[in-house]
Amino acid sequence: MTSTPLYDRDSWPIAAAMIPWPNRLPDGRTAEEQSAEEWADVLMEVADAGFTEFDPTDCWLAVADLSPTRRREFAAVAKSVGLSIPAISSFRRSITDPADGPRHLAYSHRMIDAAAEFGATAVSFGFTGAFTAAQQKALWFWSEPGPEHANDPELWKLAVGRMRELGRHAGEVGVEIGLEMNDDPFLDSADKAVRFTREIDLPSVGINADVANLIRMHKQVEHWRSMIEKVAPYMKYWHVKNYLRMEDPRTGTIVSHPTSLELGWINYREALRIALAHGFNSPFLVEHYGGDGFSITCTNRDYLRRILPRRRAH
Amino acid sequence: MTSTPLYDRDSWPIAAAMIPWPNRLPDGRTAEEQSAEEWADVLMEVADAGFTEFDPTDCWLAVADLSPTRRREFAAVAKSVGLSIPAISSFRRSITDPADGPRHLAYSHRMIDAAAEFGATAVSFGFTGAFTAAQQKALWFWSEPGPEHANDPELWKLAVGRMRELGRHAGEVGVEIGLEMNDDPFLDSADKAVRFTREIDLPSVGINADVANLIRMHKQVEHWRSMIEKVAPYMKYWHVKNYLRMEDPRTGTIVSHPTSLELGWINYREALRIALAHGFNSPFLVEHYGGDGFSITCTNRDYLRRILPRRRAH
Amino acid sequence: MTSTPLYDRDSWPIAAAMIPWPNRLPDGRTAEEQSAEEWADVLMEVADAGFTEFDPTDCWLAVADLSPTRRREFAAVAKSVGLSIPAISSFRRSITDPADGPRHLAYSHRMIDAAAEFGATAVSFGFTGAFTAAQQKALWFWSEPGPEHANDPELWKLAVGRMRELGRHAGEVGVEIGLEMNDDPFLDSADKAVRFTREIDLPSVGINADVANLIRMHKQVEHWRSMIEKVAPYMKYWHVKNYLRMEDPRTGTIVSHPTSLELGWINYREALRIALAHGFNSPFLVEHYGGDGFSITCTNRDYLRRILPRRRAH
Repeated sequence: MTSTPLYDRDSWPIAAAMIPWPNRLPDGRTAEEQSAEEWADVLMEVADAGFTEFDPTDCWLAVADLSPTRRREFAAVAKSVGLSIPAISSFRRSITDPADGPRHLAYSHRMIDAAAEFGATAVSFGFTGAFTAAQQKALWFWSEPGPEHANDPELWKLAVGRMRELGRHAGEVGVEIGLEMNDDPFLDSADKAVRFTREIDLPSVGINADVANLIRMHKQVEHWRSMIEKVAPYMKYWHVKNYLRMEDPRTGTIVSHPTSLELGWINYREALRIALAHGFNSPFLVEHYGGDGFSITCTNRDYLRRILPRRRAH
Repeated sequence: MTSTPLYDRDSWPIAAAMIPWPNRLPDGRTAEEQSAEEWADVLMEVADAGFTEFDPTDCWLAVADLSPTRRREFAAVAKSVGLSIPAISSFRRSITDPADGPRHLAYSHRMIDAAAEFGATAVSFGFTGAFTAAQQKALWFWSEPGPEHANDPELWKLAVGRMRELGRHAGEVGVEIGLEMNDDPFLDSADKAVRFTREIDLPSVGINADVANLIRMHKQVEHWRSMIEKVAPYMKYWHVKNYLRMEDPRTGTIVSHPTSLELGWINYREALRIALAHGFNSPFLVEHYGGDGFSITCTNRDYLRRILPRRRAH
Repeated sequence: MTSTPLYDRDSWPIAAAMIPWPNRLPDGRTAEEQSAEEWADVLMEVADAGFTEFDPTDCWLAVADLSPTRRREFAAVAKSVGLSIPAISSFRRSITDPADGPRHLAYSHRMIDAAAEFGATAVSFGFTGAFTAAQQKALWFWSEPGPEHANDPELWKLAVGRMRELGRHAGEVGVEIGLEMNDDPFLDSADKAVRFTREIDLPSVGINADVANLIRMHKQVEHWRSMIEKVAPYMKYWHVKNYLRMEDPRTGTIVSHPTSLELGWINYREALRIALAHGFNSPFLVEHYGGDGFSITCTNRDYLRRILPRRRAH
């Protein structure tokens, strides 16, 4: 199961998430419509903060929707500010969406090609849909339950089939797929994530062990360690973030709050040790929602560099 | 509305709040009665921690109540340890206090003169009164409701009138007034703060957008971004601090806890961008109540320096 | 009451707690059974993180249970990686345990001898027992009440007697005992801790003022400052850690979460000032449970170094 690490502490790709930057600009344009100079301004801020890698997360900018010319321009801008693209993540574009599933599937294929074009080795796909009305109004959306996930064997089969199709494509162009664990119908528990991934059964398709998406929820949750132990043999591109989590048994209150990787409930030093023991060999995405996300994203990158393994002497 | 920034990342005045130091000493004396050597000991600790500016916050030491000779002595001590005074803040000395209003008004005039004397460009005034009994007993005072603010048009008129009088005085001596947003009768919401400031209608009087005072309260609160957007055109001297804030819709629990500027709910990177876009050009006060306030105050200063704009080339 | 500090900011012994390392290894062996090379791997990680002192906490490795030969080997390993041992802490081995009290008493005597052998100047003993079933299942064990502490004068007398016996032994070999404040029958409040220590009445026996063990509990707690003021004249070896603590009076909810020394409710800058004013002159143990304990342990060590007193000129 284990394999030689491709990277060490200094070279491991740790991509900045572009989540703090909005797709829609104050002047009504989208990030895709910005000039190369405007892209450079944004990416300069990322590079200035000490990043050498970023993920052009599609909640900011969908590189798969750019024309070939503009995509080359984007790649050139990234290179000019010293940033490489180890991976691309997609958010809230489920390939089983009742209305937009087929469109999202086509988009996902284009995203895999864009990744290969940029020299990225990984993509992340998820299955979450729109927020509920209560989630939209909440201080933190995860404090309200997400949409119900009915047990639907046909939908499961459809998801496996379409993801296998994407997995084959990804494998052909040398890209791996990480399926993001989240509050969705297929990956909302470690056991389901493993079962889903095993049914797809492709070496190019594994799990993006973003267990923070689950442990922040205001309901009983599985221990993060138990989840990481279950999914460790399948781990690919890894989204990392952390939360404070508190439960008051006297009143039944559950609360959680975004915090840095070090300060939250998940012990990433231990989670990393478990993952590495199972041959984890993929890039990281450092994220943070809430407060100054980008600033904590930088803090999280520095922390990861400190706990990643040093190069072994041969 | 916008104007050329007076400062850049390195020169922007970021004053230490003296809140962690008590006015009343163990031996019964007050900070005003200390010797110059004792003042130097305190201010040395501030300078040692890397500050170049401080605000002799009057919950520590009321410079307006010193004799002219002792005030010159105080200024000399500050200078000798390398600290300048960009602003002075007043706490819990409301000019509309039923008993002490006129006395506080006279004090506020003296404070404006002291500011001018020290070369400070700003003062902060607030309208909060004494804590309720429940607030005094609480772990964090803001977990209990403050005194009721009856809608009293006469009181509002009195407040506007007296503050306009102070504003005229301040304008004459080149000092700006920031009205501190807090749980008080006039500035306890962004809308009221704007209305109050517009009624005063003086270029020397604006808003100290200390929205953290409001978002920590255990009741429904307006989103920090919405508040900053409303008050941005009026912002003067800015008290900054931050809080974790969590709500559990299942039980109705609301909790909040002081934390560093980076880790709390308010995204100061974004708040600063909004403020600067409206021409914010005033000093900062970095505060923190709870735990080691001074240590987090230093952390907050370093964070602000990182996110303030670099000098633009001309 | 006061005495000359033995240390300054740079030399004050700040020991890493070995709590993050488990006693039981994945292969079924215990830490006591590891080879010297394996011990070196663990201690190297501690030294690499910038520690110069550590406490071989017995939840990791019971040095008192090693053979004399292996104990010398352990000391040599510690020395080889540049770590000294200023103190040893014992956890959950109460000398008044109904079943194992006499065995724990014998163990505690051996621990004092091991401390002296290592050149350590302090040990910490506690009186907590096993977790309740509810504590074992809880997200954070302190969110559930611990075992009931019946008021049992005979047990109190037994505890005082046995601890006095250990205190005499410790005094003879130049070691001090810090009695750890915790949720146990004798030291679960500042008043009881003082009374218990005064009844033992030996210069070698004082209080390990680990008040964080008490302020994290989900019930009404005494203010940390009030506790520190009471126990300050008796303080020995000091376990330090911190917690966020929030109470919502509207719902009765109480929650707490581990955090760094700086960010939690206890103001260690002030607690240290109180302790030093009473002559505190003992080593520190930096701890953190929850999340990446070791990483925050390092953060806590750096913070302590910043706030400890500089060497006074003579």
